[in-house]
Amino acid sequence: MPGNSFGELFRVTTFGESHGKALGGIIDGCPAGILLDESDLQVDLDRRKPGTSKYVTQRREPDQVEILSGVFEGKTTGTPIGLIIHNQDQRSKDYGEIKNQYRPGHADLTYDKKYGFRDYRGGGRSSARETAMRVAAAGIAKKILRTRFDIRITAWVSQIGTVRIPATDKSLIHSNPFFAADADSIATLEDYLMAIRKSGDSVGAEVSVEATNVPAGLGEPVFDRLDADIAKALMSINAAKAVAIGDGFDAVSQLGSEHRDEITPDGFESNHAGGILGGISSGQTIRAAVAFKPTSSILIPGKTIDNTGKAVDLITKGRHDPCVGIRAVPIVEAMLALTLVDHLLRQDAQNRGWCV
Amino acid sequence: MPGNSFGELFRVTTFGESHGKALGGIIDGCPAGILLDESDLQVDLDRRKPGTSKYVTQRREPDQVEILSGVFEGKTTGTPIGLIIHNQDQRSKDYGEIKNQYRPGHADLTYDKKYGFRDYRGGGRSSARETAMRVAAAGIAKKILRTRFDIRITAWVSQIGTVRIPATDKSLIHSNPFFAADADSIATLEDYLMAIRKSGDSVGAEVSVEATNVPAGLGEPVFDRLDADIAKALMSINAAKAVAIGDGFDAVSQLGSEHRDEITPDGFESNHAGGILGGISSGQTIRAAVAFKPTSSILIPGKTIDNTGKAVDLITKGRHDPCVGIRAVPIVEAMLALTLVDHLLRQDAQNRGWCV
Amino acid sequence: MPGNSFGELFRVTTFGESHGKALGGIIDGCPAGILLDESDLQVDLDRRKPGTSKYVTQRREPDQVEILSGVFEGKTTGTPIGLIIHNQDQRSKDYGEIKNQYRPGHADLTYDKKYGFRDYRGGGRSSARETAMRVAAAGIAKKILRTRFDIRITAWVSQIGTVRIPATDKSLIHSNPFFAADADSIATLEDYLMAIRKSGDSVGAEVSVEATNVPAGLGEPVFDRLDADIAKALMSINAAKAVAIGDGFDAVSQLGSEHRDEITPDGFESNHAGGILGGISSGQTIRAAVAFKPTSSILIPGKTIDNTGKAVDLITKGRHDPCVGIRAVPIVEAMLALTLVDHLLRQDAQNRGWCV
Amino acid sequence: MPGNSFGELFRVTTFGESHGKALGGIIDGCPAGILLDESDLQVDLDRRKPGTSKYVTQRREPDQVEILSGVFEGKTTGTPIGLIIHNQDQRSKDYGEIKNQYRPGHADLTYDKKYGFRDYRGGGRSSARETAMRVAAAGIAKKILRTRFDIRITAWVSQIGTVRIPATDKSLIHSNPFFAADADSIATLEDYLMAIRKSGDSVGAEVSVEATNVPAGLGEPVFDRLDADIAKALMSINAAKAVAIGDGFDAVSQLGSEHRDEITPDGFESNHAGGILGGISSGQTIRAAVAFKPTSSILIPGKTIDNTGKAVDLITKGRHDPCVGIRAVPIVEAMLALTLVDHLLRQDAQNRGWCV
Repeated sequence: MPGNSFGELFRVTTFGESHGKALGGIIDGCPAGILLDESDLQVDLDRRKPGTSKYVTQRREPDQVEILSGVFEGKTTGTPIGLIIHNQDQRSKDYGEIKNQYRPGHADLTYDKKYGFRDYRGGGRSSARETAMRVAAAGIAKKILRTRFDIRITAWVSQIGTVRIPATDKSLIHSNPFFAADADSIATLEDYLMAIRKSGDSVGAEVSVEATNVPAGLGEPVFDRLDADIAKALMSINAAKAVAIGDGFDAVSQLGSEHRDEITPDGFESNHAGGILGGISSGQTIRAAVAFKPTSSILIPGKTIDNTGKAVDLITKGRHDPCVGIRAVPIVEAMLALTLVDHLLRQDAQNRGWCV
Repeated sequence: MPGNSFGELFRVTTFGESHGKALGGIIDGCPAGILLDESDLQVDLDRRKPGTSKYVTQRREPDQVEILSGVFEGKTTGTPIGLIIHNQDQRSKDYGEIKNQYRPGHADLTYDKKYGFRDYRGGGRSSARETAMRVAAAGIAKKILRTRFDIRITAWVSQIGTVRIPATDKSLIHSNPFFAADADSIATLEDYLMAIRKSGDSVGAEVSVEATNVPAGLGEPVFDRLDADIAKALMSINAAKAVAIGDGFDAVSQLGSEHRDEITPDGFESNHAGGILGGISSGQTIRAAVAFKPTSSILIPGKTIDNTGKAVDLITKGRHDPCVGIRAVPIVEAMLALTLVDHLLRQDAQNRGWCV
Repeated sequence: MPGNSFGELFRVTTFGESHGKALGGIIDGCPAGILLDESDLQVDLDRRKPGTSKYVTQRREPDQVEILSGVFEGKTTGTPIGLIIHNQDQRSKDYGEIKNQYRPGHADLTYDKKYGFRDYRGGGRSSARETAMRVAAAGIAKKILRTRFDIRITAWVSQIGTVRIPATDKSLIHSNPFFAADADSIATLEDYLMAIRKSGDSVGAEVSVEATNVPAGLGEPVFDRLDADIAKALMSINAAKAVAIGDGFDAVSQLGSEHRDEITPDGFESNHAGGILGGISSGQTIRAAVAFKPTSSILIPGKTIDNTGKAVDLITKGRHDPCVGIRAVPIVEAMLALTLVDHLLRQDAQNRGWCV
Repeated sequence: MPGNSFGELFRVTTFGESHGKALGGIIDGCPAGILLDESDLQVDLDRRKPGTSKYVTQRREPDQVEILSGVFEGKTTGTPIGLIIHNQDQRSKDYGEIKNQYRPGHADLTYDKKYGFRDYRGGGRSSARETAMRVAAAGIAKKILRTRFDIRITAWVSQIGTVRIPATDKSLIHSNPFFAADADSIATLEDYLMAIRKSGDSVGAEVSVEATNVPAGLGEPVFDRLDADIAKALMSINAAKAVAIGDGFDAVSQLGSEHRDEITPDGFESNHAGGILGGISSGQTIRAAVAFKPTSSILIPGKTIDNTGKAVDLITKGRHDPCVGIRAVPIVEAMLALTLVDHLLRQDAQNRGWCV
């Protein structure tokens, strides 16, 4: 099946390019009877909105989402929910040479190889702008998780370049431009990122995420394990290069006696596993992390070729985004929320009163 | 849809428990006309077979696979290919307390939570034994990749516990019990692992994998990106805790000028991306890595509970497997092979002579 | 997976209710490079548009479709195509008792049973209005079939109530209000239907359809046979009660010597099978037919209950539609077109140069 | 996705050819805790077994099914259930010219067109032998329907050739070789069918089916309507040419006042709809019918071509099956059972306590 749908039972399908008329999506499989209006979706959309700080892209988009169907008298009806966000910034400026040049680190070359040609306006479908619709759709998922299960999903930036950011106070995440959970790191990050930008360069970032109150039993071994589906969900985000569950790569150098989470009548004594055993949620907090590569568009000229294979020097001008990872925070939460709601519905289908 | 199928167009569905009658699988969507017999599948099955060295589980299983359908006069017919591996080791010994106890780090607790009860014999469906059928099915995928596209997939153990293993000579991988690609590391690993075992403990491992000659254009953005599907495929392997594409988590601390792979008329100047841009293969070598947690079954007693919630001390006796990651090498190759063949067929469906 | 998507590789997902803000759809999997603009979709939309004759519903809707994504510089890009049709007729008039009453023959009762409540405005999602988006999406499918394969799909009304309509001249289909393919039947049908309407009643209809130039080899036995998928596609249309392939139910009383289509070097000598053998297209013309039940909303009062279970007399006032089947003609063509394009892509995926 | 799987949540995938080593299947998504053993599957297998009367094919197959996984201590575990039926009759006799000739009415030609070559032994995958595994898998579905919902599915032969068979006594269905539900028709059918066979010819048949106690609310509009999925399920059976729901094609000539099923506090006053409104079950008995074409293999020589396009006379010798439709009775029940269980699980997923 084509690649623009996510989820088996709570299924999100999206469309839209960076400079097209609109971004849109359909949520099919949302249970009936959920109280829902646009404001439930707008909160996170506003968080990922471009132009919110001097550390991120300055494109101006109100990102107002509209619900077109599937909600009647304030409640979901069980029929598909149509969403739309109209693009404001569609000026078709002159793209000049960029039309034929392959920006290093971007999808320009691969889209041409795959489809034969591409919409070169702002990256077309390959632009992170597409994620606005993921965040909008996830607003529905988050409302279900919060109101029906008290499941809370929280993501934050845990590293920017070489600066590790401890999670000392998650209440700070949305009150600083770095989505950092540590007051003492803010000043350091400001200096660090301003220096990176002045040098015309960029850096990567790591985003951590957790989900609390997830019931035990979610996940469908052997292939649709909960951790496998989370890995796919998070790796599908633009610029993602790695995904970890629980201790992730640190587990490689751990001893079994250290990693296995012992159990007592009061619960687990640790959570190295990240809340998933054998691909099924254990009832502990789900813990994951994602690595984001540094922005590819920097002011330092780079070698590349055009679509005739000729060598060219790529020159990028104007402001640039020194760290794309920062804006990924609401998107990471969105993809985890969509994965969890889908698995809640899948578990419901398999686990009925009429069974065991 | 249930979780025991993998792939959209080259679809593998498996069944079987650790101590059941047999493991089986159906490959649906294999193109017609591929020369195929059991020997094509047996090579890798023999590599993952238990009991091949003193560093892995000593269970004795011949793992002989039989093709039951879909092949006629030596060629695939395009109809589903049925596979079966009969289990030899089915002795139903007395499982004693293990029946009711939840082994820390294992899926015992989560299977009970999900399904209400479980097949406790050797872990049932949650046992890594299930992966034998993945390896068998992938034998078909590998033959298609090799004979039709000259795509070669190679995995090796790049770290065991704290011992980093450089890839100095891949020709050694199948001639040492650690699937290591470095002659100088063998002695170190022998001492290191024997010490771990003597202590009754275990360690994690990292497996690296690469695929050469993968054509550009594979992957279906925005959700079924090639890297997202690889992440799911590799994370679905027992004991996997993290997946990296290209430089993975190292990209977090890299600069954009360092990470972006510049392009010249002669090709890319580096491969930090791991052969995937915007979720689509670029034509470079695909590079990935997987982290495996340490074996949970160790000789050091651990705290746990039984299915009544009562605290118990879990005692494991007999030989144990000091590093499960070692045996994952052919399984990592298998999952990457299944992912690539599926995406080759998906790309074929979208990219026809009658299009662009 | 939820039920609002159709097709595996050429996948259409739709949303929208009778009196909601808009109808919309996403076509995912459309190959790149197809010349496309709104006019390609509008032709059939205008054919199914309400209010085109005095024999069908008089609701006024321009049904102007807009393409929101997936097309760049006049060609499809291979990325999802977003479509929208804004509803004009959204006046929220007073629905009075209808809100709580279950109209016999309608989905009012079943939607309440399934979802707990329903959008009662004009039938909500269960209204045939939803099919406008199927027709729009199929405009893309038809263009691919026509321009790439010269496949032509033609449907016509072959029976209205007790009046059988021979297919003597298919050029007439779109020049009479009955989509009839026979000049001599027009007058009879006018009298017949006016009489039915005057009596406040309605009748059923049969729509026949054929597709020419369909290549041999389409269909995926054993479950996704071409005839099985056509049956599902046509039965999914509102008011459909039966589907026939080739001779359909007439085959029950036929002899084998009569039904089997003999073959000569010049081709088949007959086409009782309707162009499908063993679930795979044979290269002959695909022939199918659909039975549509009579309109349930008639002026003759009927017994029913309200959502409290109380007996009520249902009174329908104003103009009514004496035969819903008539307007199904473009919808039948649409569903067959979507099925054929999907199977063309599926066959392409399985049948590559690198195979046999 | 390939075509050998049926169902979204209760998913059956099958393999096997007429003269291959074995037929097999995997049922993925069966809820845990269902009491199950081989005898539950064998009952219907014995009913469809060849050689049970002189009116059907004389091939001898015990059709003993074996459960290989997914059942532990007598109960389903929620993991995939592997099934196998070994073929006895595999003698590879000399197929002579049949290898290269296309039998009229068979899939020989279309399989060659689709796959490039075919397994010509007894029709290979296109043989009705494949349906044995559908019947075995449906044994599980029927047990769930019967024990959890008291849903009973009954099919019978309602017409053979020109002989209409009223359903006067369903208790007779399994006590006569025609699966007829009418004592007075037996003698007529014996004479009729013996005469057909003596003439070396064959006839078609109609099979009717009903399901009682189906709860209201099953079906996923707008595409996965319950009637649409039943149509696909039944049309996927070998030799099926048409499917009717409720009154089917009779609805074409009915009046709205006649067809609409009026409702009273005591329930519906009639069941022309066949228990489905708007694609969702209404709580009434589900009623459907299937048309089966006459056996294509008859003793009367027929014109055809070989795979070089040369004209040949096809001569079939030995005993033949005068009416394939007769043996379809358990298969029709099987496909309806699989469809209903799948939709029960789909409805469960959408309709939870935590919703409305």
